[in-house]
Amino acid sequence: MRDFLPEDVRRREYVIGVIKEVYERYGFEPLETPAVENIETLMGKYGEEGNQLIFKILKRGVHESTGEADLALRYDLTVPLARVVAEYRDKLPKFFKRYQIQPVWRADRPARGRFREFYQCDVDVLGSKSMVVEAEICAAASEVLTALDFTDFTIRLNHRQVLTGLLKKFGIAHDKESEALVAIDKREKTGDAGVFKELMLRGVPKDAAFKTQAFFTRTSKLNEDYQDVVGALGSEAREKIVTSVNEQVNGALLSQLKEDLSEDEVVQKGLTELESIINLTKANGSAPRIRIDPGLARGLSYYTGAIMEISVAGIGSLGGGGRYDNLVGMFLGQDVPACGFSLGLERIIVVMTERGMFPLNLMSSPADVMVTIWNEDSIDESIALAHDLRSAGLRVDLYPEADKVSKQFKYASSRGIRFVLVLGDDERARGEVAIKDMGSGEQRSLRRWEVAPVIRDWRLD
Amino acid sequence: MRDFLPEDVRRREYVIGVIKEVYERYGFEPLETPAVENIETLMGKYGEEGNQLIFKILKRGVHESTGEADLALRYDLTVPLARVVAEYRDKLPKFFKRYQIQPVWRADRPARGRFREFYQCDVDVLGSKSMVVEAEICAAASEVLTALDFTDFTIRLNHRQVLTGLLKKFGIAHDKESEALVAIDKREKTGDAGVFKELMLRGVPKDAAFKTQAFFTRTSKLNEDYQDVVGALGSEAREKIVTSVNEQVNGALLSQLKEDLSEDEVVQKGLTELESIINLTKANGSAPRIRIDPGLARGLSYYTGAIMEISVAGIGSLGGGGRYDNLVGMFLGQDVPACGFSLGLERIIVVMTERGMFPLNLMSSPADVMVTIWNEDSIDESIALAHDLRSAGLRVDLYPEADKVSKQFKYASSRGIRFVLVLGDDERARGEVAIKDMGSGEQRSLRRWEVAPVIRDWRLD
Repeated sequence: MRDFLPEDVRRREYVIGVIKEVYERYGFEPLETPAVENIETLMGKYGEEGNQLIFKILKRGVHESTGEADLALRYDLTVPLARVVAEYRDKLPKFFKRYQIQPVWRADRPARGRFREFYQCDVDVLGSKSMVVEAEICAAASEVLTALDFTDFTIRLNHRQVLTGLLKKFGIAHDKESEALVAIDKREKTGDAGVFKELMLRGVPKDAAFKTQAFFTRTSKLNEDYQDVVGALGSEAREKIVTSVNEQVNGALLSQLKEDLSEDEVVQKGLTELESIINLTKANGSAPRIRIDPGLARGLSYYTGAIMEISVAGIGSLGGGGRYDNLVGMFLGQDVPACGFSLGLERIIVVMTERGMFPLNLMSSPADVMVTIWNEDSIDESIALAHDLRSAGLRVDLYPEADKVSKQFKYASSRGIRFVLVLGDDERARGEVAIKDMGSGEQRSLRRWEVAPVIRDWRLD
Repeated sequence: MRDFLPEDVRRREYVIGVIKEVYERYGFEPLETPAVENIETLMGKYGEEGNQLIFKILKRGVHESTGEADLALRYDLTVPLARVVAEYRDKLPKFFKRYQIQPVWRADRPARGRFREFYQCDVDVLGSKSMVVEAEICAAASEVLTALDFTDFTIRLNHRQVLTGLLKKFGIAHDKESEALVAIDKREKTGDAGVFKELMLRGVPKDAAFKTQAFFTRTSKLNEDYQDVVGALGSEAREKIVTSVNEQVNGALLSQLKEDLSEDEVVQKGLTELESIINLTKANGSAPRIRIDPGLARGLSYYTGAIMEISVAGIGSLGGGGRYDNLVGMFLGQDVPACGFSLGLERIIVVMTERGMFPLNLMSSPADVMVTIWNEDSIDESIALAHDLRSAGLRVDLYPEADKVSKQFKYASSRGIRFVLVLGDDERARGEVAIKDMGSGEQRSLRRWEVAPVIRDWRLD
């Protein structure tokens, strides 16, 4: 787990600020839940591996010595949401649109870019089965990344029911479905041939494994052709082409799937939903980002409909989500349709740092100006000057001791503070302040009332 | 532990926003530390009671069954700060001025206004023994409360070394000191006579207990006279009088203490520091708030110098702090002077809610405007309208289903959304939008491009 020093916090707050601003414009409201949940709320919701990775809290007081746990740290933001919806049903609107940006904890082995405490940024809409929800969520997540200056991302879209139908058609039995999904999820790492091997290893019959592999080879051929076309283009032309190619690939895939799985009603409904999402996103501008990917599986078992993931070329996933119409029912005893999306804050920050995407002024100094202390007798005058400038809205550091002035200048310089003010005997006698611009080295005297406007002008430059 | 629904989050974020803004103007920088610390970092830092109240986390994996804990939840923000300073010494400036606003966890029995998860808002300055630090901290905390619209608060100021000297003079042995501090701390609840009783109960000799009680009766007499004078005044006159009375009471108390404890050098140094703080705060405007209170003890044992607490009449403490020059040394093996102040976010929010101090627009609706859906065929037009208005910076909710329009209006009304837009067949044919002002009931048609400016104008009203 990590400490965030000031510069880190500023980076994080910048990203979180953008996410909040976009989500608020989409009519999402903030929710916060406690870090600690009852252990029964969490256990059994994330599979066997999840149970292992949950941080469990010892009972307190006389029960401490039992070694038993009754509480646990939040593992994601979706299960707490489901609990909240069940608990506050009457206080919440029919369509509950919330965003939540808080840390979660997993006892994973730490690795590069993977931490045991990390933030999730979730949006979810509860209460509607309409595909308008999926379209809104795709647009909102897409707009967050655009606002952060990402240009090269794709929203991969698939449907759990379509995936299930496909596997059934290929001859994969229901009890091997989740094993098969894992193999398919690894496709980007293992390649198409690897999928075949992995399926066999996991006990899928040869014939079924072969059909599955053949299908994904065929669909990924479409993707490769697409990459070839797009890769050859300049960045301006690319935008237009991506839109049109995405549209063609999506159309081709959907009709192929419709034909291949024409006898399966559940699949047909899923395909209609995907079509509907693509059509609706044409109205909100996110359609050009969307690409149907029949191989997108997403690990979590609670998804029931559309699933999506945002990927950046050469980087991988920055977030994902989907529809889960049954999860709230586990708490409420009555199903509430739901669909959500989670952005990976840590991943976004890592990529933005590597690519130099943060605004320059974020990295600036802790203060606009530093006030020095001339000597013991004039400390109060330095304090008063700092006070006036703060009242004028400036961020002011005050050197706390009557050290040698040269030492104070050195300190300001090491802190990257642009202006340093000195109230020497002469300046005080004249009601003036000496100001040094540490950038240009220029030094001059100003009347006291001129100081704030001069520094404010510089800030606006 | 509590869930914060949207309205609660908005209140909290408003207060946190004000605190950050003020602290940044004072040159403090943000720090964040993980919720979880190694258990050895926390144990033994908060006394025996503290050890009991720490939430401890079970070892994971094969060690889970041992029932042992190796991690624990953050109990305050000061010990993690000390750890950070020891760990990152070389990366931090000579004077490290940080603020930190994060939750802490204590396994206290929950009570009204006391929670097991609560936020602390800390500022600390590390690296200087100068009383300029105390003066800056008093001013910053005072400015936060003023910015939140508190007018009736007092900064009570005392000094640990003065307190120790007093107790010694009264005949309270060193090993009874912390017991005596608890009795004195309870003075507001038990009254002066109660202090005597409590001291006796805790094994302080009768003579010492009597002297202690007599002293606090005398000093609190000064306070009562002060309350009588101030209570009789109108609010405008009060401000001036408070300033002058505080100055007189402070002066009287300091000279009395100087005389009473003239033989104790350590105490004299403490008194000089208090005088110095009062003089320096005259330059930053917080002096009128400061009142010397020789009975202020503050629970934590790590304070070494000035201690302070902000109280509101009839409410009690909203925060407190002081100098602790030895705590960092416990981690670093080398002392680093330090002084800090912690504001109680939960308490501030409770008081502000009771007194109706939150700005009205905070309680407003989740969106500026809601777009309805006329019928299945025009969903995309509603989505496009919502998209345009969001791009224009408005907060827009989109009803997700093609329900009866009357039902959609009812929903907007229940959500407190001011404007509702309808794209009926006629409006669409004319390139217009029907807008209903749910406040006045007025409905009219606008050209599409007029919608955003009309709503924006209303927002600015």
